[in-house]
Amino acid sequence: MELKSAMTARRTIRRFLQQPVSDEQLSGLIDLARRASCAGNLQRLRYIVIRTPELVHAVFNHTAWGALVRPRRNPVWGESAPPAFIAVTAPAGLPPVIHADAGAAIQTIQLAACAEGLGCCWLGAFDRTAVTELLEPGPETEILYLVAIGHPGEAPVEELAAGGNVKYYLDAADVLHVPKLGTDALVTWR
Amino acid sequence: MELKSAMTARRTIRRFLQQPVSDEQLSGLIDLARRASCAGNLQRLRYIVIRTPELVHAVFNHTAWGALVRPRRNPVWGESAPPAFIAVTAPAGLPPVIHADAGAAIQTIQLAACAEGLGCCWLGAFDRTAVTELLEPGPETEILYLVAIGHPGEAPVEELAAGGNVKYYLDAADVLHVPKLGTDALVTWR
Repeated sequence: MELKSAMTARRTIRRFLQQPVSDEQLSGLIDLARRASCAGNLQRLRYIVIRTPELVHAVFNHTAWGALVRPRRNPVWGESAPPAFIAVTAPAGLPPVIHADAGAAIQTIQLAACAEGLGCCWLGAFDRTAVTELLEPGPETEILYLVAIGHPGEAPVEELAAGGNVKYYLDAADVLHVPKLGTDALVTWR
Repeated sequence: MELKSAMTARRTIRRFLQQPVSDEQLSGLIDLARRASCAGNLQRLRYIVIRTPELVHAVFNHTAWGALVRPRRNPVWGESAPPAFIAVTAPAGLPPVIHADAGAAIQTIQLAACAEGLGCCWLGAFDRTAVTELLEPGPETEILYLVAIGHPGEAPVEELAAGGNVKYYLDAADVLHVPKLGTDALVTWR
């Protein structure tokens, strides 16, 4: 897929088809994420791939989705929940730049997933204590984010944010709309 | 350019040809970055594009480059310095997730730049007080990162990190080598 097509086509997905994602595909995504920029080339991020149904279900039970479209857009286990998660972990207690590393890696995963016909939801809202107990990332290691991955079961649309309103919403036909600010609103030229 | 080609071909660039980058190209990069994932779709990042030579020079004087290859790989003003910077700013005092937003946006800029034949260096090391005085991002606004952008004047190579050593280095022929950990070293399967 063309890079710019993926960058414009990619949307956050919160409804998934009930089809698995292969280990090869998941491994391929991380193989690209590991090349993303990171501070000092230190490569401190690690990945836990969760794809056995019992563990996916257990993790899923501790996640929260799209604050502005819940509960209507909450995925439902057995109907629209993701078949896999990737947990992005790092040594605990690092400065905020580790979040920048994670952002670069996760955006890479999401773009590469889009090029494979997959969809993702990057989750920052989950019960960290419960998920850490389930995943046992190791001592002094924290789970920064989860990325839900699967075959998209919805097709959200992007639109230009009117009057600076960036609140995403579901319309009467249950389509998710995602308002984005235009470039002119974001840039100062010097 | 194919998305995956850009993801594997992209390298951090610290030597630039002395050619300008057009405003159209710079605007195009931000037009893609604004579609990157961000927490809650809140879109709190803003961009200052610096491309007038006097201001580029002034900002450049307050930047620090590649700790492991300095001073040999420091770009030199008038010879190998970048023709432009993009400063990524945000409201001051937000939680670390704003760095994740910045990471996703900057990785998008870097990949899109690579597809255009451009190269970038994502800079976290700069004199924030001095650069803030120069750029005047506005009250209660902080400059999170700078991204140097231009036409690449070097061709770094990626290699597999041997024995976990991730230190990048210049070889006798002045080529930059960037060791990356393999996927197997980064992933736990559950």
